Amino acid sequence: MKVAILGFGTVGSGTAEMLTKNRALLKAHAGEEVEIKYIVDIRSFPDSPFADRIINDFSVVEKDDEISLVIEVIGGAKIAYDFTKRALLAGKSVVTSNKELVATHGVELLSIAKEKGCYYLFEAAVGGGIPVLSPIANDLSHNEILEVSGILNGTTNYILTRMFSSGASFEAALAEAQAKGYAEADPTADVEGHDAARKIAILGALASGKLVSADAIHTEGIRAIRAEDVKAAEKIGCSIKLLGRYLRTESGDMFLLVAPFLLPADSPLSGISDVYNGVLVRGNFVGDVMFYGRGAGSEPTASAVVADVDKIARKAAYRPAFTAAEDVPTEFSYFRARRYVVVEGADAAAIEIIFGETEPLASEENAFLTAEMSEKGFSERAKRLEACGGKIVSHIRLYR
Amino acid sequence: MKVAILGFGTVGSGTAEMLTKNRALLKAHAGEEVEIKYIVDIRSFPDSPFADRIINDFSVVEKDDEISLVIEVIGGAKIAYDFTKRALLAGKSVVTSNKELVATHGVELLSIAKEKGCYYLFEAAVGGGIPVLSPIANDLSHNEILEVSGILNGTTNYILTRMFSSGASFEAALAEAQAKGYAEADPTADVEGHDAARKIAILGALASGKLVSADAIHTEGIRAIRAEDVKAAEKIGCSIKLLGRYLRTESGDMFLLVAPFLLPADSPLSGISDVYNGVLVRGNFVGDVMFYGRGAGSEPTASAVVADVDKIARKAAYRPAFTAAEDVPTEFSYFRARRYVVVEGADAAAIEIIFGETEPLASEENAFLTAEMSEKGFSERAKRLEACGGKIVSHIRLYR
Repeated sequence: MKVAILGFGTVGSGTAEMLTKNRALLKAHAGEEVEIKYIVDIRSFPDSPFADRIINDFSVVEKDDEISLVIEVIGGAKIAYDFTKRALLAGKSVVTSNKELVATHGVELLSIAKEKGCYYLFEAAVGGGIPVLSPIANDLSHNEILEVSGILNGTTNYILTRMFSSGASFEAALAEAQAKGYAEADPTADVEGHDAARKIAILGALASGKLVSADAIHTEGIRAIRAEDVKAAEKIGCSIKLLGRYLRTESGDMFLLVAPFLLPADSPLSGISDVYNGVLVRGNFVGDVMFYGRGAGSEPTASAVVADVDKIARKAAYRPAFTAAEDVPTEFSYFRARRYVVVEGADAAAIEIIFGETEPLASEENAFLTAEMSEKGFSERAKRLEACGGKIVSHIRLYR
Repeated sequence: MKVAILGFGTVGSGTAEMLTKNRALLKAHAGEEVEIKYIVDIRSFPDSPFADRIINDFSVVEKDDEISLVIEVIGGAKIAYDFTKRALLAGKSVVTSNKELVATHGVELLSIAKEKGCYYLFEAAVGGGIPVLSPIANDLSHNEILEVSGILNGTTNYILTRMFSSGASFEAALAEAQAKGYAEADPTADVEGHDAARKIAILGALASGKLVSADAIHTEGIRAIRAEDVKAAEKIGCSIKLLGRYLRTESGDMFLLVAPFLLPADSPLSGISDVYNGVLVRGNFVGDVMFYGRGAGSEPTASAVVADVDKIARKAAYRPAFTAAEDVPTEFSYFRARRYVVVEGADAAAIEIIFGETEPLASEENAFLTAEMSEKGFSERAKRLEACGGKIVSHIRLYR
């Protein structure tokens, strides 16, 4: 089987290395040798061991009938979209780590693949090296999937871990993550939750059969988390994690959201630290299962890419199946949770009148936990508080 | 697709319930209805909703050409072996939760299944509901598997968790586990590590292609763990877990063992408590990934059974592939680890002469951590200690 790699960056070079290093192993159980014929990049790499295979023109790949599989690790939804579509239309399977493209054009690309009898697989788009899409599609799909909640972004998990271990502010922890190469110079996509939103859109699509646009997902990042919130969380034995969540309630409602949550120590996601990712899946018979591992990095991501290549090579590939959601999921204002709240400018009596029975926290601030209430209920209470001259200083939902 | 369930105990009734409750879901993606035609048990269940399908004679199943799949949840390696072999010889696929049978006769049964063009699958034999055999075989097999280490027995994990949370002795924690129904009246198979040995034999077979007899695996249980050891572990920030381990060293040596280990808090297996199981897999590219969930119980185990049924129904089944190991794995005496050791009847000078440089622990006992040494090296030192009138009171290996 002859393949082409599109994009020779971190993931592309890791993939080339794994296909080379584990070549005999792959051949042994795929029954077929997987050979890299082209690597397409706009740059040239004269010193690379793959220099003789690097080309600049995708149409060479497109027109080469020997190529049955294309590995797209360019990223973004522009040139990658064009190349992926052309490859699939030419009957070539495509394997990718490109979450943005899958979250944006996944429905169309899967439908072309099906029509052309080839495959579009994207294990590496979610959770780095962790097998998670395949287990959901192949090993858990006989369960009603009630929840998929994940720590899906290593950068924010590193920042939150540092805020807990050193008491650092968000800004200081971000600077540290940037110095270590875990966060980009422009960290917006990570810290604002957009990266996690794309990933939970894909996980939700696998679980529900409906792909919701990442733009339609209520998304909060971690910029607003303060060192004081970390201290308060520690006092009640909780960690704070940025979670992407897909939830199906018993009444059939469906929520998708990305937000920081307070997690009690006995939650399996609570102990996942540094750049590691974890995805919890709740099924109606299996209960809670969790998948854990490195959510990024050249080698783990290459492993997920090659897992899909391997499945196609040994004719064991599956078809992720979902259509575009016709409408957004259930109105987010109905989402219910207990909440950690810090207020200013209101005394205990005012808080009781507005928030009802609360659980005050030992803190230098006016911090408490509320009973379970909807987003709508919380917003209304926040408005009432403002009308009395008070304000919400911090608000984090409790995971359950 | 018409199926028969052999054995209407905990797992059998859970499986019947799941096949009934999730019937529409199964049909939707298998494209075929899965119908329970018979349940074979020596008992009768007049009040069961499945009473009309309960029969006592397996040969009815064996001779019924409509039955293409048999679910064996009897347990043990006697009658279950006879029925499984006859079903496979009749060309019927068999799905099981029976770890003893797979560990004992797996090679022969897989070979009959292959010859007859049917399947023998056993996801439920390891890790209860957690998808772990399928991910190793299907999602990670393109990695060189360097290690599989798991908390594979819920009973012992519950006992160890209680010893840490309440300071209880082994005996008291065992009694509590028995009162809660987590441990059997005769807890030998669990607490002596035999159950874990069968499971690591199966995991090792998936990872290496060679099934080692559980009897040939060095197996230590948790009876010798004392409340003092728990206290010492807590002081150095470790938990104690009974692990089944498959290890392949860089030089190609292979170890299989079951023993309690001291795990530092940052190990992903360290935080797995109560009856939960976790399996860590280390691949040469993916690094460490971990699978976590309920290791036992009617519903989770049923989920794993039905996962295999579902794969066969939608023609997506795989063939676990291993042969019998011709010899035992690498001589256990070469296994190297750091060790927590407690001695009596020897002073610091004698300990230094015998064990070399050690890391003494703050303890009322004479407790210390050794440098890395082999089993053989440790045994020789224990003998020298005895020759000087001392003795080993406790010995637990450190995980790394």
